[in-house]
Amino acid sequence: MITTDILIIGAGPTGLFAVFEAGLLQMKCHLIDALPQPGGQLAELYPKKPIFDIPGFPEVMAGDLVNNLMEQIKQFQPGFTLGETAETIDKLEDGTFVVTTNKGTKHHAKAVAIAGGLGTFEPRKPLIDNIAAYEEKGVEYFVKDPELFRDKRIVIAGGGDSALDWSIFLSNVAREVTLVHRRNEFRGALDSVEKVQELKKLGKITLITPAEITAIEGEGHVERLTLDCNGAQQILETDYFIPLFGLTPKLGAIANWGLEIEKNAIKVNNALDYQTNIEGIYAIGDVNTYPGKLKLILCGFHEATLMCQSVYNRLNPGKRYVLKYTTVSGVDGFDGTRKEAEKAVVKSIE
Amino acid sequence: MITTDILIIGAGPTGLFAVFEAGLLQMKCHLIDALPQPGGQLAELYPKKPIFDIPGFPEVMAGDLVNNLMEQIKQFQPGFTLGETAETIDKLEDGTFVVTTNKGTKHHAKAVAIAGGLGTFEPRKPLIDNIAAYEEKGVEYFVKDPELFRDKRIVIAGGGDSALDWSIFLSNVAREVTLVHRRNEFRGALDSVEKVQELKKLGKITLITPAEITAIEGEGHVERLTLDCNGAQQILETDYFIPLFGLTPKLGAIANWGLEIEKNAIKVNNALDYQTNIEGIYAIGDVNTYPGKLKLILCGFHEATLMCQSVYNRLNPGKRYVLKYTTVSGVDGFDGTRKEAEKAVVKSIE
Repeated sequence: MITTDILIIGAGPTGLFAVFEAGLLQMKCHLIDALPQPGGQLAELYPKKPIFDIPGFPEVMAGDLVNNLMEQIKQFQPGFTLGETAETIDKLEDGTFVVTTNKGTKHHAKAVAIAGGLGTFEPRKPLIDNIAAYEEKGVEYFVKDPELFRDKRIVIAGGGDSALDWSIFLSNVAREVTLVHRRNEFRGALDSVEKVQELKKLGKITLITPAEITAIEGEGHVERLTLDCNGAQQILETDYFIPLFGLTPKLGAIANWGLEIEKNAIKVNNALDYQTNIEGIYAIGDVNTYPGKLKLILCGFHEATLMCQSVYNRLNPGKRYVLKYTTVSGVDGFDGTRKEAEKAVVKSIE
Repeated sequence: MITTDILIIGAGPTGLFAVFEAGLLQMKCHLIDALPQPGGQLAELYPKKPIFDIPGFPEVMAGDLVNNLMEQIKQFQPGFTLGETAETIDKLEDGTFVVTTNKGTKHHAKAVAIAGGLGTFEPRKPLIDNIAAYEEKGVEYFVKDPELFRDKRIVIAGGGDSALDWSIFLSNVAREVTLVHRRNEFRGALDSVEKVQELKKLGKITLITPAEITAIEGEGHVERLTLDCNGAQQILETDYFIPLFGLTPKLGAIANWGLEIEKNAIKVNNALDYQTNIEGIYAIGDVNTYPGKLKLILCGFHEATLMCQSVYNRLNPGKRYVLKYTTVSGVDGFDGTRKEAEKAVVKSIE
C-alpha cells in the first residue's frame, strides 16, 4: 500500500504544480497517471509546440514547461504510479481514502485531488472485431518501452506525428518497420515527414499507402495482419501491430465515484477551495467546472494552490496558517535541500 | 483624455498580465501606477531577489519576471501613466468610467480593474515638522530621475538597500553625497555595504552615523539641514535631502470610491469574476479579498484572466465567446505581429 498526504490523480501541469504548493505546507504527494510519463497532454500530445499564455513566459515549449515543473517540485519528492488508471475509491471511517488502480495498486491518502485534465487519454482503436483479444499480446497502442520491439517485426498504422516519429525512432530498434496509412498524405512536422521519406529510400521503413489493416490473426499473439489496399487483400507477417490513431479523453471510472458531473466535468465549489460534493475529494484544472470556468493551465495552478490550503486546514484543524512568501521564507525540500534569497547583512561601515 | 477598454490601476505583475489576457480578447489596456516604472513591488522593492513559487520557474529574479511579463504583453501595446496615483472615479451614464489622477490626468475606460497590490507605496517620512513645505522643493522621497542631482550637493538618509544603492549610484552624478543613518550598522546586500565602505575611503561619500536630520531650512527650497549626532547639533549645507526610509502601502484615494472594503482590501465576487460591489469595477491580485484568498502572484494571474473574460462578456452581450488555446490559435498583436506554433504539413511520401 502506497501512503501519502494528497493523492493526485493526473500528472499534468496542474497536478505537478500541486506537489509544490503541498510541499510548502509540509504535505507529501503521490500522482497516478494513465500515461507512461508525467506531463499529461503537454508531454504526450504536443511536447514540441509553444504555449504563449503561461504568465511570465512570452513563449514556452510544452515539454520544457513540464521539465521546469518537474525541476520545481523535485525537492518535494513526489511519488508516481504511471501507466495505470484510478479505478475505485473507498472512503474509510476516519475520512481517509483508498484508491485502487486498474492494475490493483492501492494508495492510501488523507485527501484526493483529481487533476485529470480532459480525462484519461484512451487510444482511438481500429475497427477490427477481435482486436481486444490481442491487446498486450502484440497489439500496443502506446510505445511505453521501445526495447519491447528490439529485433522484432512491427507494423505501425497512422498518418500523424506519433506514427511518423515512432516509425523513425523504431527503425533503429526493430528488425522491420512497416508504416501503413489510409491516405497518401501524412500530417506532421516537416522534418518528420522528410525523415520518413529518407528512411523509406534507404529501405529502413516499408511504406504502404493508401491502405488499412482489416484483420488480425495468430495463436495467443499477433502473427499476421490482413492489409486492404484499394480492395486488394495482402497478408503481412509481423510480431507487433501498433495503431497510433491519436488519443481521446474519457473521464473513465472516476465518473462512477458519486461525484457531481456536468458536461463531462466535475462540479466544484470555486467560491472556496475547489472541493467536490464529497468532502476530502477535490477537482482542479481542466477536469473541473464552475461558473466562469476557463480551461487554462494558469487557472489550474491557482486552483491547485487553493486546494492545498484547504487540505492543510482540514488536516490541521485549529492550527493557524500564516502565509509566507518564498522570497522571504525560502523553500525547504523534503530531501534536505534549502533554497533561499541571499540574506541582507547587518554591518557597520568604518 | 486617454481612452482605453480596460483601465488597470496598478502595474504590478497582476496588472501587467491582465494586458495579455485582454489582448487575446482584442481589448486594449492602459495602466496607472504611482511608481516611476512598471513592476510594482517586484521592481521597486526586490528586483534582485528570487521568487520560488511562480509556476514553471524553479527560481526567478523578481526583476526578470517583470521583464518577461513586459515582453509577453508588448504586442498588445499597453499605455502607461506612471508616477501618478488614481484619485477620483466618475461613472458616466453609459456605464463607462473617467478616472483622474493626482496630477489631473484623465482616463476614459469601459471597465476598471484595480490591481493595486497592497496599495500605493507611500514613502515613510522623517518626523520633521515642516518637511511637507519642502516636498519637491529639495526633499525627494524617490529618485525618479538621477539627472536632477547632477553636480548638486545631496544628503541621503537611511540604512537599507535603497539608501546604500542610491548613495553608490549618485556618487558618480552628484557633486557631494552625504549619507546619514541613525545607527552605525547598515542592513543590505553584502556587496552594497562593501562598495559604500570603499567609496567612503575614496572620499566620494561622506558618512555620518549615528545621526539624524532634525530640521530643514531654506528660502522656497532646501538650503541647509540640522543634524543631530548624539545630542550635538551640526548644520549641513545641501541642495537636496533624500530620505529613503522605505515604503508603506496605503490603499489611498481608492478607499473613498464607495467600494466594499474589508481589512484594507476590496471585497470581490470570487465565485464568478472578481467584480466589486460597483458593476464594471473589478479588483484583482493582492488588493482584493474573498473567502480563502491568498495573496500570491499566481492567484493574481488567474483573477486577471477571469476578470478579462467578464469584461469581454459585459462589453459584447450576446456574443458567444469560444476559448481558443494560444498553441492552436496563435497570438495576434495589436502591432501587427503574429506568434504561432509551427504548422503541421500535409505531404505525400513518394
